[in-house]
Amino acid sequence: MIKIGVIGYGYWGPNLVRNFAETNDSSVTYVSDKRTDRLKLVQSRYPNTTVVEDPDDLISTPDVDAVVISTPVSTHFDLAVKALRAGKHVLVEKPMTCTVEEGEKLLEEAARAQKTLMVDHTFIYTPAVVKIKELVSNGDLGRLLYYDSVRVNLGLFQHDVNVLWDLAVHDLSIMDFILGEQPTAVSATGVAHLNNQPEDVAYITCYLRNNLIAHFHVNWMAPVKVRRTLIGGDRQMIVYDDLEPSEKVKVYDKGVSLNEGPEGVYQMLVSYRSGDMWAPHLATTEALKNEASHFIDCITNGKKPQTDGEMGLRIVKILEAADKSLDNRGQPVQIN
Amino acid sequence: MIKIGVIGYGYWGPNLVRNFAETNDSSVTYVSDKRTDRLKLVQSRYPNTTVVEDPDDLISTPDVDAVVISTPVSTHFDLAVKALRAGKHVLVEKPMTCTVEEGEKLLEEAARAQKTLMVDHTFIYTPAVVKIKELVSNGDLGRLLYYDSVRVNLGLFQHDVNVLWDLAVHDLSIMDFILGEQPTAVSATGVAHLNNQPEDVAYITCYLRNNLIAHFHVNWMAPVKVRRTLIGGDRQMIVYDDLEPSEKVKVYDKGVSLNEGPEGVYQMLVSYRSGDMWAPHLATTEALKNEASHFIDCITNGKKPQTDGEMGLRIVKILEAADKSLDNRGQPVQIN
Amino acid sequence: MIKIGVIGYGYWGPNLVRNFAETNDSSVTYVSDKRTDRLKLVQSRYPNTTVVEDPDDLISTPDVDAVVISTPVSTHFDLAVKALRAGKHVLVEKPMTCTVEEGEKLLEEAARAQKTLMVDHTFIYTPAVVKIKELVSNGDLGRLLYYDSVRVNLGLFQHDVNVLWDLAVHDLSIMDFILGEQPTAVSATGVAHLNNQPEDVAYITCYLRNNLIAHFHVNWMAPVKVRRTLIGGDRQMIVYDDLEPSEKVKVYDKGVSLNEGPEGVYQMLVSYRSGDMWAPHLATTEALKNEASHFIDCITNGKKPQTDGEMGLRIVKILEAADKSLDNRGQPVQIN
Amino acid sequence: MIKIGVIGYGYWGPNLVRNFAETNDSSVTYVSDKRTDRLKLVQSRYPNTTVVEDPDDLISTPDVDAVVISTPVSTHFDLAVKALRAGKHVLVEKPMTCTVEEGEKLLEEAARAQKTLMVDHTFIYTPAVVKIKELVSNGDLGRLLYYDSVRVNLGLFQHDVNVLWDLAVHDLSIMDFILGEQPTAVSATGVAHLNNQPEDVAYITCYLRNNLIAHFHVNWMAPVKVRRTLIGGDRQMIVYDDLEPSEKVKVYDKGVSLNEGPEGVYQMLVSYRSGDMWAPHLATTEALKNEASHFIDCITNGKKPQTDGEMGLRIVKILEAADKSLDNRGQPVQIN
Repeated sequence: MIKIGVIGYGYWGPNLVRNFAETNDSSVTYVSDKRTDRLKLVQSRYPNTTVVEDPDDLISTPDVDAVVISTPVSTHFDLAVKALRAGKHVLVEKPMTCTVEEGEKLLEEAARAQKTLMVDHTFIYTPAVVKIKELVSNGDLGRLLYYDSVRVNLGLFQHDVNVLWDLAVHDLSIMDFILGEQPTAVSATGVAHLNNQPEDVAYITCYLRNNLIAHFHVNWMAPVKVRRTLIGGDRQMIVYDDLEPSEKVKVYDKGVSLNEGPEGVYQMLVSYRSGDMWAPHLATTEALKNEASHFIDCITNGKKPQTDGEMGLRIVKILEAADKSLDNRGQPVQIN
Repeated sequence: MIKIGVIGYGYWGPNLVRNFAETNDSSVTYVSDKRTDRLKLVQSRYPNTTVVEDPDDLISTPDVDAVVISTPVSTHFDLAVKALRAGKHVLVEKPMTCTVEEGEKLLEEAARAQKTLMVDHTFIYTPAVVKIKELVSNGDLGRLLYYDSVRVNLGLFQHDVNVLWDLAVHDLSIMDFILGEQPTAVSATGVAHLNNQPEDVAYITCYLRNNLIAHFHVNWMAPVKVRRTLIGGDRQMIVYDDLEPSEKVKVYDKGVSLNEGPEGVYQMLVSYRSGDMWAPHLATTEALKNEASHFIDCITNGKKPQTDGEMGLRIVKILEAADKSLDNRGQPVQIN
Repeated sequence: MIKIGVIGYGYWGPNLVRNFAETNDSSVTYVSDKRTDRLKLVQSRYPNTTVVEDPDDLISTPDVDAVVISTPVSTHFDLAVKALRAGKHVLVEKPMTCTVEEGEKLLEEAARAQKTLMVDHTFIYTPAVVKIKELVSNGDLGRLLYYDSVRVNLGLFQHDVNVLWDLAVHDLSIMDFILGEQPTAVSATGVAHLNNQPEDVAYITCYLRNNLIAHFHVNWMAPVKVRRTLIGGDRQMIVYDDLEPSEKVKVYDKGVSLNEGPEGVYQMLVSYRSGDMWAPHLATTEALKNEASHFIDCITNGKKPQTDGEMGLRIVKILEAADKSLDNRGQPVQIN
Repeated sequence: MIKIGVIGYGYWGPNLVRNFAETNDSSVTYVSDKRTDRLKLVQSRYPNTTVVEDPDDLISTPDVDAVVISTPVSTHFDLAVKALRAGKHVLVEKPMTCTVEEGEKLLEEAARAQKTLMVDHTFIYTPAVVKIKELVSNGDLGRLLYYDSVRVNLGLFQHDVNVLWDLAVHDLSIMDFILGEQPTAVSATGVAHLNNQPEDVAYITCYLRNNLIAHFHVNWMAPVKVRRTLIGGDRQMIVYDDLEPSEKVKVYDKGVSLNEGPEGVYQMLVSYRSGDMWAPHLATTEALKNEASHFIDCITNGKKPQTDGEMGLRIVKILEAADKSLDNRGQPVQIN
């Protein structure tokens, strides 16, 4: 039985607490939050959980084996380092840290502590993304040509991070998981429309190997909600629409190939193929439930998390490079 | 009665011929095409039209008042210049020319000849785009924040131009018409997946005044057809979906504003407003029919076309700058 | 503070308990259920609520002012009568009773007891249905021509009632509320596909005054979920799609009229009008929350519920007539 | 080379003429129409076709082998009989005749004349319907449970026939083709909203063998266009949406079965199965082109048409029975 302490009971914290409370082999022993009314809410829902204002009390108690950090990004690094140094396993909200520098230090701390460090990139644990990963890994799509995602909506406006760190972080983690490959360079554009506020509309292009290109569109000010990803291969193509209630993943037996024309290479012929469409049945388990079980499993059995600190760092690297490019109107930025 | 000669009876030419044949005050007296079978087809459909292989015969005859050029882009400049020098009015397919340099020369020729020069940016003549222009011009949307368009599909692969010059040209012309303003800089990215073939996937960001940003996504290799534009203002927002059979334009009474919080400017509050949605009724007239009438009207009454050479040149300037940026992975390129 | 006792903590009961627990001016003092595990669940969630197995204990205690009945239909009548005789107000799940006879007796009991009797026709309390009622009552639609609803899905199979009593009951209550009028006759068809099971697919036509016709399609075995109602007037028409996340109600400025032709009444001309479409903004409050407040308000202030016993009885009358017609393959059945 | 004469160049006639003109092995030698302007239009489009006002001239000429009848329903019988007696093959618009009596006489005439009699039930020749027929015939759906179709729209108002004979005729022919079985009884309801005009909204339930039920909803006054058919089997289910541009047919691996519970037949368990969805690729050939070729093939090779007079008569029988039921508010009518 892994004893979990959750720091932060704001927007996402309640989901984390609920899932760890309902997962076998774990219990939520502590919750901390600076706001008294949030702690009262925890108490009414979980009478057996200890609530504290100061996260240090949670980190230092022997009654916590693993710390779950669900606080603003700027606090992730300090809290995670403290927890690791106190000998706790750590699950931290995405994005893992504010900078690459912090991210690299955090990985060193985790290695030194020999504890599990996992990042809460929740989408990786959805049945839809797991299915797409399987289809791409099998080679069903053929050679990959492009990856294109849109995540827009008239939604919550974050004051502390821009729309890339708030929304694109989801899609970058999905891409990382599906493609298993880090971009070599990025170009990003975007603007802030409200004074003293971060960028609210942004676009990123990532360059990958073999002419594979990935593009991300994120927007906090769109009149309609769109959560759609296209993944094109030369044999098959996928449309992943997260808003579809049941058929979230559609696989199109469509592709394109280049053949020599009757007069040789100087007259190449492009041919299109259009066949059936297929929507695989997907399980309906909640992603966070899968993720909570996976975290417990990694702690218990010393496994490497699917969304480990290395992955968290890769995402932060892309975001940091994208910010730099965005400030220079799309000027490309290399990723080491 | 304006006598029309049409050069090129390939993919688009038949639509041009049909519309000029059916428009009052014009008749199609000549059609030229290098391919005998295409000319035979013209003859069977329009027994009274003269068909010739050599476009020079069409340009030089006194039986043609206006020349309509529907041939590959690389031939536009030469044919248009010849026609203007022969004293003919000219309607040329989009994009107007291959380069800015050609475009500027063509405008000089038209000025010298004192003839009408119009570019076939067909979408400007659709009821949907006319309605959006009206809504934006009225100020109904408030301050404009962003313009975002997607035009993708598993479609025809052009060998002579890349996907920007084939597809983005439509959306750039729509933006030019609606915003009435030229971008100051562009950043573009994209890749070619087939050897010795032009780019088939591309993205452009255009920077305009007052933090207005416009973005274009075009793709010849998408499994699904999408033709959707979002236009966000701080008072209202528009979704223009060209594939909707009847409600192509939807106006959302949604917006966002920034207000001082109780503790002053250091604590700004973003507020969202969400109200009704409204889809104006649109006429169902064919765009090309409107365009043909407009061309005849401009010739007859000496009016300035809505899609005149100046506009054609503005679009070519964006495309040329985008190509340059795309070659440098998004490096921004200024537009004079 | 009204003290609520809820009988039945199965599928719907938890929603009732939660809403009455969260509504001001009411508290849930008792819950009864025959199943021990359900009572344990209640206790873990609401430590201050008394749980009992026998509903009679709940009905007889002075610690309950109003009884909410969320049990199989066959038990509604007995429980509701007992509760009224014990001087309690009653909110009963839909359909109110199994038969018209029971329904009439129940209304007599409520009149005698001078207590509030309300039926849980939840849809009447949704912002969408309230908005439609307003539009129809205002006369915005002109003369009503037809009402057509579809409610289908691969869903729960009820063993105790057929698909009419399970699904059509929703739409009949919405129609009753919107039209404010009882059908004069019904014709219904349907079949049972599984041995010894009730009808799983059914259709009802209701005849109303002035050539208004209403039709209902319900199906437990459809591969896709549809919840759509069309309401046609000669001036405007409504599409109500309950599965749309935000634009559930669309009002079409479309209509049809009959005019005399140039040669008089023997040559009537039908003319169609097609104009704008408009989707009013709807509040997002939970229907059951509105309903719970309304029930408390009716008890406290002696108001007549919008979904009172009279309405509950009207719906049961239609269902009973529809069953009779269905058994005779559509033979029409009059409603008194 | 079969010489075709087409009677009636109104709404549908031009499509028939075009397809027979473009089909190999046939030419359109004659067209007749009472309206001079329509004949002029034919002449401008088909200079080699003879145009006449009187259909008798077309029927009697040796320069016509087969007569295509595209006129109001009330004239079908007389024209078709004349053509058969003149030794011509006949393709007649749907519905074949106004009454069963006429239909039976027409079949006798065709048998006597030993000529091909085919009915223009166009949908039978669409790739979508052919694919559905194949899936149903293969037994892929398991035991069929229900067939449900909706065809509604604010459309043309027919003055000579009601909405059943105008719209339901399409779906009845599709059902006849797919199920290969005639209903034993029908119940229909509907109303006429405009004085002296036919019914504009109607519903039909058809009873078939083995508890299979088919239902049809047609409406000339709906604000939105819907063309959707659900076909449910106990193993798979189909959704056929004719308005989808490419994925018109979707096959759901969903079904329902009844199993004995642990305590035997008195406690049956209904179990649902939900699996993948699959949309077969469909050819894009025009239905009428397939139909024209089929008619020529039947004439030339003495084949029995897929939409022969027998089928045309079956549809008229259902329509006549439905009219009778509709007049009696759903009272069931047997079909012999």
